[in-house]
Amino acid sequence: MMSQLEKIGEECGVFAIYDPEADVARSTYYGLYALQHRGQESCGIAVCKNRDISYYKSMGLVNEVFTDEIIDKLDGTMAIGHVRYSTTGESLMENAQPLVLRYSKGNIAIAHNGNLVNSKRLIDDLSKGGAIFQTSTDTEAIAYMIARARLTTGSIENAVEQSIQHLYGAFSMVVMSAQKLIACRDPWGFRPLCMGRKGEAIIFASESCALDSIGAEFVRDLLPGEIVVVKDGIIKTIDTYVNKKPSSMCIFEYLYFARPDSCIEGQMAHDSRKLAGAFLAKEAPVEADVVIGVPDSGLSAAMGYSEESGIPYGLGFIKNKYIGRTFIQPQQSMRENSVRIKLNVLKSTVEGKRVVMVDDSIVRGTTSRRIVNLLRKAGATEVHVRSSAPPFLWPCYFGTDVPSRDQLVAVGRTNDEVCNLIGADSLAFLSMEALVQIAPSAKCGFCTGCFSGKYPFDIDEVSEKI
Amino acid sequence: MMSQLEKIGEECGVFAIYDPEADVARSTYYGLYALQHRGQESCGIAVCKNRDISYYKSMGLVNEVFTDEIIDKLDGTMAIGHVRYSTTGESLMENAQPLVLRYSKGNIAIAHNGNLVNSKRLIDDLSKGGAIFQTSTDTEAIAYMIARARLTTGSIENAVEQSIQHLYGAFSMVVMSAQKLIACRDPWGFRPLCMGRKGEAIIFASESCALDSIGAEFVRDLLPGEIVVVKDGIIKTIDTYVNKKPSSMCIFEYLYFARPDSCIEGQMAHDSRKLAGAFLAKEAPVEADVVIGVPDSGLSAAMGYSEESGIPYGLGFIKNKYIGRTFIQPQQSMRENSVRIKLNVLKSTVEGKRVVMVDDSIVRGTTSRRIVNLLRKAGATEVHVRSSAPPFLWPCYFGTDVPSRDQLVAVGRTNDEVCNLIGADSLAFLSMEALVQIAPSAKCGFCTGCFSGKYPFDIDEVSEKI
Amino acid sequence: MMSQLEKIGEECGVFAIYDPEADVARSTYYGLYALQHRGQESCGIAVCKNRDISYYKSMGLVNEVFTDEIIDKLDGTMAIGHVRYSTTGESLMENAQPLVLRYSKGNIAIAHNGNLVNSKRLIDDLSKGGAIFQTSTDTEAIAYMIARARLTTGSIENAVEQSIQHLYGAFSMVVMSAQKLIACRDPWGFRPLCMGRKGEAIIFASESCALDSIGAEFVRDLLPGEIVVVKDGIIKTIDTYVNKKPSSMCIFEYLYFARPDSCIEGQMAHDSRKLAGAFLAKEAPVEADVVIGVPDSGLSAAMGYSEESGIPYGLGFIKNKYIGRTFIQPQQSMRENSVRIKLNVLKSTVEGKRVVMVDDSIVRGTTSRRIVNLLRKAGATEVHVRSSAPPFLWPCYFGTDVPSRDQLVAVGRTNDEVCNLIGADSLAFLSMEALVQIAPSAKCGFCTGCFSGKYPFDIDEVSEKI
Amino acid sequence: MMSQLEKIGEECGVFAIYDPEADVARSTYYGLYALQHRGQESCGIAVCKNRDISYYKSMGLVNEVFTDEIIDKLDGTMAIGHVRYSTTGESLMENAQPLVLRYSKGNIAIAHNGNLVNSKRLIDDLSKGGAIFQTSTDTEAIAYMIARARLTTGSIENAVEQSIQHLYGAFSMVVMSAQKLIACRDPWGFRPLCMGRKGEAIIFASESCALDSIGAEFVRDLLPGEIVVVKDGIIKTIDTYVNKKPSSMCIFEYLYFARPDSCIEGQMAHDSRKLAGAFLAKEAPVEADVVIGVPDSGLSAAMGYSEESGIPYGLGFIKNKYIGRTFIQPQQSMRENSVRIKLNVLKSTVEGKRVVMVDDSIVRGTTSRRIVNLLRKAGATEVHVRSSAPPFLWPCYFGTDVPSRDQLVAVGRTNDEVCNLIGADSLAFLSMEALVQIAPSAKCGFCTGCFSGKYPFDIDEVSEKI
Repeated sequence: MMSQLEKIGEECGVFAIYDPEADVARSTYYGLYALQHRGQESCGIAVCKNRDISYYKSMGLVNEVFTDEIIDKLDGTMAIGHVRYSTTGESLMENAQPLVLRYSKGNIAIAHNGNLVNSKRLIDDLSKGGAIFQTSTDTEAIAYMIARARLTTGSIENAVEQSIQHLYGAFSMVVMSAQKLIACRDPWGFRPLCMGRKGEAIIFASESCALDSIGAEFVRDLLPGEIVVVKDGIIKTIDTYVNKKPSSMCIFEYLYFARPDSCIEGQMAHDSRKLAGAFLAKEAPVEADVVIGVPDSGLSAAMGYSEESGIPYGLGFIKNKYIGRTFIQPQQSMRENSVRIKLNVLKSTVEGKRVVMVDDSIVRGTTSRRIVNLLRKAGATEVHVRSSAPPFLWPCYFGTDVPSRDQLVAVGRTNDEVCNLIGADSLAFLSMEALVQIAPSAKCGFCTGCFSGKYPFDIDEVSEKI
Repeated sequence: MMSQLEKIGEECGVFAIYDPEADVARSTYYGLYALQHRGQESCGIAVCKNRDISYYKSMGLVNEVFTDEIIDKLDGTMAIGHVRYSTTGESLMENAQPLVLRYSKGNIAIAHNGNLVNSKRLIDDLSKGGAIFQTSTDTEAIAYMIARARLTTGSIENAVEQSIQHLYGAFSMVVMSAQKLIACRDPWGFRPLCMGRKGEAIIFASESCALDSIGAEFVRDLLPGEIVVVKDGIIKTIDTYVNKKPSSMCIFEYLYFARPDSCIEGQMAHDSRKLAGAFLAKEAPVEADVVIGVPDSGLSAAMGYSEESGIPYGLGFIKNKYIGRTFIQPQQSMRENSVRIKLNVLKSTVEGKRVVMVDDSIVRGTTSRRIVNLLRKAGATEVHVRSSAPPFLWPCYFGTDVPSRDQLVAVGRTNDEVCNLIGADSLAFLSMEALVQIAPSAKCGFCTGCFSGKYPFDIDEVSEKI
Repeated sequence: MMSQLEKIGEECGVFAIYDPEADVARSTYYGLYALQHRGQESCGIAVCKNRDISYYKSMGLVNEVFTDEIIDKLDGTMAIGHVRYSTTGESLMENAQPLVLRYSKGNIAIAHNGNLVNSKRLIDDLSKGGAIFQTSTDTEAIAYMIARARLTTGSIENAVEQSIQHLYGAFSMVVMSAQKLIACRDPWGFRPLCMGRKGEAIIFASESCALDSIGAEFVRDLLPGEIVVVKDGIIKTIDTYVNKKPSSMCIFEYLYFARPDSCIEGQMAHDSRKLAGAFLAKEAPVEADVVIGVPDSGLSAAMGYSEESGIPYGLGFIKNKYIGRTFIQPQQSMRENSVRIKLNVLKSTVEGKRVVMVDDSIVRGTTSRRIVNLLRKAGATEVHVRSSAPPFLWPCYFGTDVPSRDQLVAVGRTNDEVCNLIGADSLAFLSMEALVQIAPSAKCGFCTGCFSGKYPFDIDEVSEKI
Repeated sequence: MMSQLEKIGEECGVFAIYDPEADVARSTYYGLYALQHRGQESCGIAVCKNRDISYYKSMGLVNEVFTDEIIDKLDGTMAIGHVRYSTTGESLMENAQPLVLRYSKGNIAIAHNGNLVNSKRLIDDLSKGGAIFQTSTDTEAIAYMIARARLTTGSIENAVEQSIQHLYGAFSMVVMSAQKLIACRDPWGFRPLCMGRKGEAIIFASESCALDSIGAEFVRDLLPGEIVVVKDGIIKTIDTYVNKKPSSMCIFEYLYFARPDSCIEGQMAHDSRKLAGAFLAKEAPVEADVVIGVPDSGLSAAMGYSEESGIPYGLGFIKNKYIGRTFIQPQQSMRENSVRIKLNVLKSTVEGKRVVMVDDSIVRGTTSRRIVNLLRKAGATEVHVRSSAPPFLWPCYFGTDVPSRDQLVAVGRTNDEVCNLIGADSLAFLSMEALVQIAPSAKCGFCTGCFSGKYPFDIDEVSEKI
C-alpha cells in the first residue's frame, strides 16, 4: 500500500536499445512505460542517428510526456531512456535524464539508476578542478568522471571502465556515444540490469518486464561490475570489475520495487513475495477466516500466506486505478479517513471474519493504522497484520528513499508497541532468517542494509574515498 | 480485460450532495474520483450557494480537470457532479455535464446516467415546437421536458415527475435547482442510484463506492421510478412511478461496469462475479492446474471458479497500472503483440501448466486470441477460456456501448468456432440460467437484453411514443 | 490609451466566407486575426462541408486557439467566425461563438456582434414557451427566434427576416445553414458589416481590414436592415427592413473601436480621427511646442491636431507591444506608477516643452492623471489634454461597455474640475457639433447616445416590446 | 518592418536588481517585460535569499512564463533575469538563462547578452581539461572560465575579472553569487548595459527602458570593460579593462535593436532614428507628397525625413498588434500577399500620391518588394524607398543574427539593381558617412562591422586566441 500512501522511493529505471531496423524511440517508449513504476517524476529519450544525438525529456509520466509527433522526430538506430522517481519537494526539470552532453570527443548521453555513496566527495574534487554542476544528480558527476577519463584513454568504454573504480555505490547505467551503446552495473550489483534480444536488436533494461513489453527475449542479467559494449550489432564485454566485490542485490527489489512479473537474477519477484508470505505463515501463524493483501505489492505475499496456511485467500480491498500525478489532498478534517479515497474495503470479504492482512512493509505505521481501522469498521472481528518485509531500521545509501529513523515506526519500539499503535490484534514482520531465503533461484547475494544495518562496505570509510 | 483493450462502454456516473456544513465541491470531487471507472472522457461539478449556481467542467479525468484553486471557487451547500464515458470519435466539450441552464423559473443543473430509447422522437417533437439543441446528449432533451413541464406545474419536482412519463429508457439522474436537490431513477431501474448520509449531509451516487470514498453511510438504493427531493435537509419522496414497470437492473453492471466493492440492490458486485465463476466451474469444469483471471474484472470470477473447482488460483497477469488518456498506439507491425504493452503474463504461474483463464466477457474475440497466444508463449500447455458473461448477441438500448452485431464474435458462430478462433483448448460462456442467479441478494429483476434479446418493453413501439 | 488601461469594450467581430475553391477555415483565421481588436476573450470558426457543420472554439486569441492541425480539420466550402470581447469577471467558455445548433430543419451556426435592448424580454417570453438557455448571450435568444420562425416559414432566410422584426438593438450577424450563408445588419445599422469578393469567393466581415488581410476586394457595406443570402455563389438581397429606421452607426466606431485602416460607410477611421484632432485644434487651440498622441487610437487625432495647429507632431510614448492575456498586475505600492509598465514617455520629445497630449477619450480619468504625471516627471513644462471624443455621460445599450455613470469622470464635474483632477494645464473635449462632422464621407447617420443621451428609439418603451 | 517579417535577431536582454526592501522577482518581471523586444524565445529569473539561489525559466514570453504563483515563490533580496532571442530551428529549453550552477565556492547564476568570437576555442580548451557541456550557449563557457578562475582568486569578482582577459567578443552580463551582484561589459562595449537606482535598490539592465518600467532612476551606463560589484548595498568598481580597447558600441542598436525610448551612452534611440531620417532627406531628396514609415522601427526615421524635407508625415500602415509566438503561416498560394496579414496599407494616406517609404533596413529585399507592391495596389503613384541603415554586406560576430552573404540583397548588386528588384521608383540607403553621425550625444565609438566589414579587432586572429 506504500505505493501511493507511504511511498518508499527508488531512483529510476533505464532502458537502451540498438536496433538497425525498427523505430528505436517507439520501442524505448514502450520499455519506459513498462518501467514507469520505477519513477514517475520525469522521463526522457535520447536517440542517435548518423552520429548525431537528439533527445526529449520533460516532467511527467511517459504517456503524458511523449506524443506521436515527438516520437516520430526521435529517429535513430540507438536509443536510451530513463524514468525518474520523484522525491518530495524537489521536482526539477534540470534533473530529468538522459543527460546529454558534449565533451572532448563529441556527444554522449547517460541514464542512470542508483545512488553513489561518495558523490559528494567526487563533486568536491571535481569542483576543485574547476568543474561546474548544473543538476543535483549523481549522473552529472559520473559524466564528468567519464569525460575526464576519456582524455587519457582510447575509447569511451575504457573511459567508463576507468571511471568505475572511483564510483562507490549503486549504479546500473546506460551510455550512448556516436557509435556505441554501453551498459554497466556497479561491482556490487545493487540494482538490476538485464539484456535482451529481438531479431537484430539488442536491448538493456532495468527489469525484464520491459523486454516483455516489446516482445524481446530475455538473454541474461549483466554481472555485477560488468560493462557490455554494443557497436554495429557486435557485443563486447569488459569484466575488469566482475567478481571483485561481494554480490549485493537490493533484497527490497524482490519485495517491493520490481514489478511482480520481472525476473531478476533468475528469480521472479512475484514468487519471492509468495515465498515471503509462506514464511510468514510458518513464522507467525494465526487462527483466521480469510487472508487479504494490501494492493498492490501485498497481494502476492497474501497468496503465499493463504496457500501455506490453508486459510482462504480473499479480495479485501479495491484500489482506485486512476492514478495521476496531481490529486487534491483531503483537508485536515478528512485526513484520518483519507486512505479510503484510494482504497476501499470489500465488506463482504471481511465482515464478521477474523482477517489476516498482509502488507509489503510497514514504514511509519500511519497507513497501517488507518487500514486496520477501515477493516474493523467494515466488520472484521480480528485483524492480524503481517509484513512481508522485516521492519525498516536503518538508512539506505544505495537509492532507496527510506525515511529518517525518527519517522520509522519500528525504531525504538517493541513489536507489541507497534502492534498497539496500528491497532492490530497481532503483528508479525518477516524474520531476517526468512528474508534471505525469499529468492532461492537468484544466483546472487543480497544487501539487507535497511533492515539489518549491515552494508557490503564501510559507508563512513568510503565516503572519504575517491 | 476489456477495460483497456476491447471496451464495452457505459454512459456515465452521477453524484450529488446536500451538506450545510462541509465543502460540497471537495466531497463531489472524491465521489467522482470513486466513480471514474464509469466515464473518463469529461467531468464536471456544479454547486449552488445562496440560490446561485456556478460550475466547472472540462474534458479529462477528475484529477486532471480539477485543481485546488478551482475546487475552492466552487463554494456552496449543494453540488452535483458527473463523469462521462468517451465514445470513440466524438469527444465533445459541449457534451460534458452537468448541464447548467436557465429556464422560466431560474437556473437548474442536471447530470444524467443512461440512455433514452425515444430521445430522437422527443427531440423531433421539441424541435417542432421551436426548440434548439446545442449538444448531442439525451440530457438536453430531458432538460427541455422538465422546463416545459414546469410551465404548468407548481414545483421543479412536479415538473420532473410530469416529464418522466414521457421518458422511455434508462436514466438515473440528479437535478439541482436554487433550493432543491432531486434524484430519480427510471421506472425500470436500469441503472443504479443510491442514497447515503454523513451527519447532516445527504448524498446520492451511482454506486455505493462513492459513498465509501467520503466516509458516508449507505442508506438505501432508490426504487425504480422513485423521485427523492431534498430541501433544507428535509427528504421527500414521490412514488408515482414506483412499481409501475418491470424491475430491470442491467445485469452487466454486476459483471463488469460496477466497481467490485459497490453494493447494488443489496448485492456486492465482487460476490456476483465470484458466483458467476463458481457457476462456470459447475457448468464447464475442466482438469487443470491453475485458474487465472484477466484483470481487472476477470479476477473475482477466477477466484470463484477456483474455490468451486478446487483448482488453485494464481496470479496470471500483471497489468500496467499507469493508465492515461493518451497513449501512443503500436504500429501495425507490432499490433499482434500490442496486448503485452498493457498486460504481461506471469510466466512462473502458467509455465508447464494447464490453465483456466477466466475473463469477464468476450466481445470481438481479438483480445482473447492475443491473450491466449501470450499464455501459450509463456509455456501454458493448455488454455481453457471461461467467460463469466454469456455471449453478446444483441444491441443494448439503455446505455451500454455494445459493438454492432457484425463485430460480435459470437454472432453466427458456434461455440467451437469461437473457441477455434481465439485459439483456446476449450471455451465456455456462462449460461443464461446461471446468469440470472448471480445476484441472489438483489431485490430486483434484471435486463439481460444484450445477451437474450429480450427487453423490458417493445423497443420499436416505444421509439414511436412520447 | 484605453485599450489596455481603461478599456471601453465592444461585443465582437464577425467574419464569413463562401469559397468553393480555397481553404475557408484558413481565410477565416486570417480574417479573425485582423478583427482581433474587436474581441480577445474567445474565438471560434464553424465550417460547412457537404451540408455538415463542424466547428472549433475556445478561450484565447486567434493565434493561440487555432493550430495548423485544427485548421486543417475544418474543411469546407463555407465558414463563419467570431472573436468575442472579454467583459471583466465573466469569461465563459459557454459564451464563445459561433453558436452551433440543431433545430427542426437541421443544423445552423450563428455569430453575432452587437447587443439587443429587448433580450431580457425575449428570453422571458421564450422561457414562458418552455425554452432553456445555456449561455448568457443574446445570440442564443436570436437563434431561438429564428428556429421558431422557421417552423412557419419556407426557408432559413425568411426565418431570419421574420425574426428581425422582434429584435431591437444592435446586431450585425452571420448565419450558416447546410446550404446558405446569410449576413444581416439591424435596421438602424449600429455596427458595421461589409461585403467583399476574391475571385469566386464572397466574404462578409465586421470591418474592411479583414477583407484586406486576405487580399479580397471591398464591394460595399450592407445596408441597415439588409439581409444578404449566398447560395452556391448566387447572391440575393432581402430589403424588407431597409430604410425603415433612422440610420444610426455608432460614432465611437470611428473614434476608437475600428482599426484605423478600416473603411466604414465610405469613411476611413484614421481620417475621422485626424479630423477630430483638427476640430479640436480649432475649438481648443493652445500655445505649445509639441503635439503627442496616446497610443494607439490617440495617434491619428494627434496628427490631425498637429497639421491643423502647425505645432510639430512628436512621438511621445512607446507602448510595450507584447500584449498577452495574462499579465501579473503591480502590487498596491506600485499601482500609481503602473501605467509605465505598458507605456513609457519619450523624454527627449517632451523635456522642457509645452505639450499637447491627445487621447481618444477620457473615461474614469485615472489613466489620464497617471499619464499627465509621467509627462511632467519627464520634464514637460505644460500638459494640455485634448480628448478626441466628447465626455462619456450616458450608458450605451448597443454593445459598448461604458462604465456605470458613477465611474465616469465627466458626470457631475465641470471641465475645470476634471482638468484639475487629471492634473492638466488645460483640458478640452471634442464638441458635440464637431463630433457629428468627423465622418463626412459616411453616407449614414449616427448614434451618439453615450455622449448625448439621445438614442434612435425610446429605450424604456422598447424593452417592453417584442 | 523586419521585426516580424525579416528578422535580424540579437542574442538577449539582461536585468539585475539588489533590493533589500521590495519584491525583486516582481521588479525583474517588469524589467524583463520592458526588454522583451530583445528576445522572445525563453526567459528566466533567479533570486537569492539568505545565500540560497532559486530560479524558474521556460520557453515563452515573460507574461506567458511567469504567473503570480511562480513570482511569489521567487523570494529574495537579489535577482537576475534574462530574455533570450529565438534563432530559427533551435529552440532549446537547455539554453534558457539564467544559468544556475554549483562550483567550488557555492552557487552562482549568470545571464548574458552577446556573442564571443573565441567560444569554440574556449570550449575546445576546456574540454581538453575534462569539461562537459550541457548547453549550446557561450554562457556555459564563461561560467567555466569563472569557476576555474575562482580556484586561484580570492573572490567571485576577481574570478570574473580574471576570466574577462580570455573573452573576445560581446558580453554584457550579470552574475549573482550568494552575497554579491556583479555586472560587467566587455572591453569594447559592444552591447549596452546601464545602472539605475530606486531608493535603496540598485538595478542593472540592458536598456534604460527597463529602469523606467519600474520607476527607477537612470544613473549611468557601465563603461566598456567595467565590472561593478554590489554587496549589501555597497557598490564597488573594478576598472582593469576600462579604456583598454577601442570603444565599439553596435551602431545597429540605435537603428533597430533598442527600444526608441532607451537612452544608450547618452543618446536616445528614437532621436538617432530621426537623425538618420534627416540625413537621408539631405542625402537622397525626392519630390513627393507624403513620407511614411514601415512599423515599428521605420516610424522614427520617417518623422526625421519628413521634418528635414518638409514633406508631410503620414500614417501609411497599420500593423496588427496581436503578436504571438505561434501563428499559422499562409500557404504557398497566398505567400506573395502574406505581408498584408500583419501589415495593412492606409489607402487614404497614399492613394494618388508620390510616397517616400522609410524602412529601418533592407535585408533580403523580399519584404520590401511586397510592401512596395502593396503601396502601388493602394494607389501610390510613386514609391521611393529609403533605408535608414546602410546595406548589410558583412557578417556580425557579436550577436546580431545577420543572414549569410548569399541571402543579402545588397551583396553583389548595384543600387539600381536592388531598386529594380524591390520595384521602387528610387532607392537610397543611409551613407556610411551619415551613419557614424546618428548618435551625436553618445560618448562612445561604434562597431559598424556588418555594414563596413571593419571590426574592432582581427576576427581570424582572435578566434585562435584564448
